[in-house]
Amino acid sequence: MDDCAVVPQRPRERIISTARDLFRRHGIRGIGVDAIADAADTNKMTLYRHFGSKDDLVVACLRDVGKEADAIWNGFEQAHPGDPLAQLHAWVRVGAECVGDDGRGCHMANVAVELAESDHPARHVIEQFKTDQRNRLAKLCRDTGIADADLLADTLWLTLEGARVSRQSVGVAGPCAHFISIAEAVIAAFSDAASSSRKVREVERYTRAARQGKLADAAIGKLKARTQSVPPD
Amino acid sequence: MDDCAVVPQRPRERIISTARDLFRRHGIRGIGVDAIADAADTNKMTLYRHFGSKDDLVVACLRDVGKEADAIWNGFEQAHPGDPLAQLHAWVRVGAECVGDDGRGCHMANVAVELAESDHPARHVIEQFKTDQRNRLAKLCRDTGIADADLLADTLWLTLEGARVSRQSVGVAGPCAHFISIAEAVIAAFSDAASSSRKVREVERYTRAARQGKLADAAIGKLKARTQSVPPD
Repeated sequence: MDDCAVVPQRPRERIISTARDLFRRHGIRGIGVDAIADAADTNKMTLYRHFGSKDDLVVACLRDVGKEADAIWNGFEQAHPGDPLAQLHAWVRVGAECVGDDGRGCHMANVAVELAESDHPARHVIEQFKTDQRNRLAKLCRDTGIADADLLADTLWLTLEGARVSRQSVGVAGPCAHFISIAEAVIAAFSDAASSSRKVREVERYTRAARQGKLADAAIGKLKARTQSVPPD
Repeated sequence: MDDCAVVPQRPRERIISTARDLFRRHGIRGIGVDAIADAADTNKMTLYRHFGSKDDLVVACLRDVGKEADAIWNGFEQAHPGDPLAQLHAWVRVGAECVGDDGRGCHMANVAVELAESDHPARHVIEQFKTDQRNRLAKLCRDTGIADADLLADTLWLTLEGARVSRQSVGVAGPCAHFISIAEAVIAAFSDAASSSRKVREVERYTRAARQGKLADAAIGKLKARTQSVPPD
């Protein structure tokens, strides 16, 4: 981002950018406003003029994270207009990038873990963000036409949340390394479960017809076309 | 636990028990050794005699958590000896209880999130614990005979990790509420994916034989028996 060196950020943006980085690396409680002001090349008075308190700064940082996530979602739609399945696969790939990332997982989830107090103002931002993200994923799953779309969305959602927290517990070589395989297997399983059992019943129907000598050539062709798409064991 | 009131714990056990509770509620950084010593009805000197530092106390608390998890695993084997699938379903049920619990998720994962520093002595305990737990789950999945057992284990594992962290972000009514449905759907999908596609191919074979007038009654009976077990759409 060479632009940052050429066009200096305004104090507010610079403080948010610096605080996000420091909160992410050291945790909310692991860094104070003095250190943030210093690192942002400003002073505590300016910081407090823009953000009434450290809590307000935390909230501003999380809203900034939220905006980036919205931009990523809009990117899925722009890259694959009218193709929800392609958008879902893109979500998996971006999810894997988030898991790899700097190894510090999800900023929002981390803050939720760290700020156990239920009345912290950041909690509402986190809850709203996570709910919106999950609902957006559920709509995408429904748009693909896959049966049990809400259950599929929750499965993918929890898998990604789990991968990002597991990355922090056991590192990049742990189960999170298989996030893409897992997510794709889950999508395939939810897609195949319905279609495979549908195919079995179709084939059964044709078998009965064949047994009774009623199977027309057209039906045989249809049967072959459908069963050929069943994957091998 | 009325026994606790009758037989007072020794100082070491009392400090660990109190520290676990306070760390869990307020986070590692959210509580000091003075407050822990006070709550454990002892003093800082005694605390430091048993645990050289706060870091050592954190490690002792996590080892205590690990022992409980081992006891739970042994319980699965004792309750369902020689029945790995029943043990796997029991794992799902206990997982759901952990998700519900007090809403503070996994103690180990929380500490990993909070202690971003890579050289904290707790990190090794967490990594070892999580790796052991995941490997135990993978062995159990392999023992059930389900294909892709390692991928199934990682999927279930990340789903549970995700449910416990999601519980902290969006509460008990979020995606974590569906943990049992998700885990059972995942187990069923991994089981069905292989068996359904196997059934489709069997039925295809019989269809071809029927078409060629070679289908014996015994084969018809075998076909019926196998396809009847395919679940409806």
